[in-house]
Amino acid sequence: MIVLFTDFGIEGPYIGQVKAVLYGQAPGVPVIDLFSDLAPHDARAAAYLLPSFAEAFAPGCVFLCVVDPGVGGSRAALVVEADGRRYVGPDNGLFEPMMRRARDIRCWEIGPPGEPVSATFHGRDVFAPMAAALARGEEPTGAGGRTCMPPRRPDWPDDLAEVVYVDRFGNLMTGLRAGAVERSRGLRVGGAVASFARTYSEVPPGQVFWYENANGLAEIAVNQGRAADRLGAWVGARIGIE
Amino acid sequence: MIVLFTDFGIEGPYIGQVKAVLYGQAPGVPVIDLFSDLAPHDARAAAYLLPSFAEAFAPGCVFLCVVDPGVGGSRAALVVEADGRRYVGPDNGLFEPMMRRARDIRCWEIGPPGEPVSATFHGRDVFAPMAAALARGEEPTGAGGRTCMPPRRPDWPDDLAEVVYVDRFGNLMTGLRAGAVERSRGLRVGGAVASFARTYSEVPPGQVFWYENANGLAEIAVNQGRAADRLGAWVGARIGIE
Amino acid sequence: MIVLFTDFGIEGPYIGQVKAVLYGQAPGVPVIDLFSDLAPHDARAAAYLLPSFAEAFAPGCVFLCVVDPGVGGSRAALVVEADGRRYVGPDNGLFEPMMRRARDIRCWEIGPPGEPVSATFHGRDVFAPMAAALARGEEPTGAGGRTCMPPRRPDWPDDLAEVVYVDRFGNLMTGLRAGAVERSRGLRVGGAVASFARTYSEVPPGQVFWYENANGLAEIAVNQGRAADRLGAWVGARIGIE
Repeated sequence: MIVLFTDFGIEGPYIGQVKAVLYGQAPGVPVIDLFSDLAPHDARAAAYLLPSFAEAFAPGCVFLCVVDPGVGGSRAALVVEADGRRYVGPDNGLFEPMMRRARDIRCWEIGPPGEPVSATFHGRDVFAPMAAALARGEEPTGAGGRTCMPPRRPDWPDDLAEVVYVDRFGNLMTGLRAGAVERSRGLRVGGAVASFARTYSEVPPGQVFWYENANGLAEIAVNQGRAADRLGAWVGARIGIE
Repeated sequence: MIVLFTDFGIEGPYIGQVKAVLYGQAPGVPVIDLFSDLAPHDARAAAYLLPSFAEAFAPGCVFLCVVDPGVGGSRAALVVEADGRRYVGPDNGLFEPMMRRARDIRCWEIGPPGEPVSATFHGRDVFAPMAAALARGEEPTGAGGRTCMPPRRPDWPDDLAEVVYVDRFGNLMTGLRAGAVERSRGLRVGGAVASFARTYSEVPPGQVFWYENANGLAEIAVNQGRAADRLGAWVGARIGIE
Repeated sequence: MIVLFTDFGIEGPYIGQVKAVLYGQAPGVPVIDLFSDLAPHDARAAAYLLPSFAEAFAPGCVFLCVVDPGVGGSRAALVVEADGRRYVGPDNGLFEPMMRRARDIRCWEIGPPGEPVSATFHGRDVFAPMAAALARGEEPTGAGGRTCMPPRRPDWPDDLAEVVYVDRFGNLMTGLRAGAVERSRGLRVGGAVASFARTYSEVPPGQVFWYENANGLAEIAVNQGRAADRLGAWVGARIGIE
């Protein structure tokens, strides 16, 4: 299975063009759109979503991860194998929290492609062919990769006290693992403090609360309302733990 | 074939997470995104779309239907077999008009899952595994289901004189089957009255009209315009038959 | 492979309904959503995207192309075979630039369907069954097609100096092939003039520039910004070459 984790947008041709490569070069492998609407160019916000969403997938899955404001510049391209799952994407921090939490890691830098590629769409021209090759069972080294260890980002926290994604319902996903926040603590955002509840039906309509979402992250919501609008918060908003 | 009929949003990870379950547990079964952007939490509006859209699908199809504001609370989970198609979803009225119009119905209440599930994402953790099991040919009873008959909602009409969906073009789908409205009648919404026309090219640009849409529902449109914006109407707007 | 190129919207049921036909009538053939959000009803803007995006696909691919404001009226339905790729859609100019650029063309007008179809959804009822038949290996003539040559539109230019698509990042795709614009020329839109750069990282954040996009079209962008908002430009905006 190949899993797409990108900011390409649910609109437009980009996901389709990537799938054309994948279906062509790894026929019969199912492709899942996990996230196509990560906050544009925000590799850090995306990085704190990746491990929480990846862990539901079986070893062997290939994650094609592209939030890549530096495309066409000098940033390296990586393949990471972590706890049996494989990740392909740019070396810009996108894999940092995932790698910190993994028990077993190997990492390769992808060599320059053999044929000319676009300057702006490495998702289609570099990362997708590599993901397809991995899904077919090839080794990263087979594509000119060399073992490496990407630079750690010591200034990045283990959990990020910020909103990292806003969903259709206006819910605010944070970069905080729910297990890292005591249930008795409130989460402050946009001037309001959200107390913990297990689920929507435990609070009255209109009340702000936080809960452990279905992927293990602390998430701020309003029962039958839109937390993002109510609190005026979006990706990047700081969360206070009180 | 498994057909998704949800309010999960075309954005975000939820449809992808559901598909990961379906592809994993029912390999090779095609999955169709029919509706992912039903009006959030509005099980009644969705309920009046379901039978009109389902009837184009062959017997044997499995519909995974989730508009579920009561998730995590006490509402039951259902499997309904109606005229050979199977439906999985919450017991909140979502299947009411479909069941009323079916000739042959069986219904099961799904027992509690064997393993712990999230409190907020039964679409992924309860309904998707059941849909996959049905698509593999299993019987609802095999998962602890027991025959039941969900409570009827006698206060719900047979046709709903409201807007139930607004599409990309700003067209207003109503909960009225077109066959239930005489062609000589006008549909009043937002201060305007739409007369019947067979198709767009039969009315001048800019004119409001109603027509029988490709799924048998009465739909209000503006030729080369957006009825929703022109009439200031959205899901829930009342329709008068004049 | 069947490739969808439509203005049906990424929302709503229409793409799903078309896929249900394709999966049912051409089982096992992969279906790619290339564009689902072409500017509504704007066959001309879409026409200048099609050849640039189609050429990455192998001969044998079937393109299901629907931007069809005249649905239900008198416009003909076409199958075009051009350089080994097949295209199905309305005869309204949508194939004009693609045909002009092709070396080898054959064209058929699709006869009236054998069974009654909706007046408003030929994408599902006429074009999708034809695309499925072609993908199964049938000849266009097998469906009552007769060889034809659609009317040329001599008033349409070879390259269109207009914005033809705005993507998620607010980038403005133009109908100009990048090779048709000298690198020393600027592109004027919305009161600003964009100079050429190879890629984002070559210009400072906030600067407007134009580049050859990954599909060979001239595209106007702002590094780490949204050109559409900055320049107040949308599909249809005129481009000056200075």
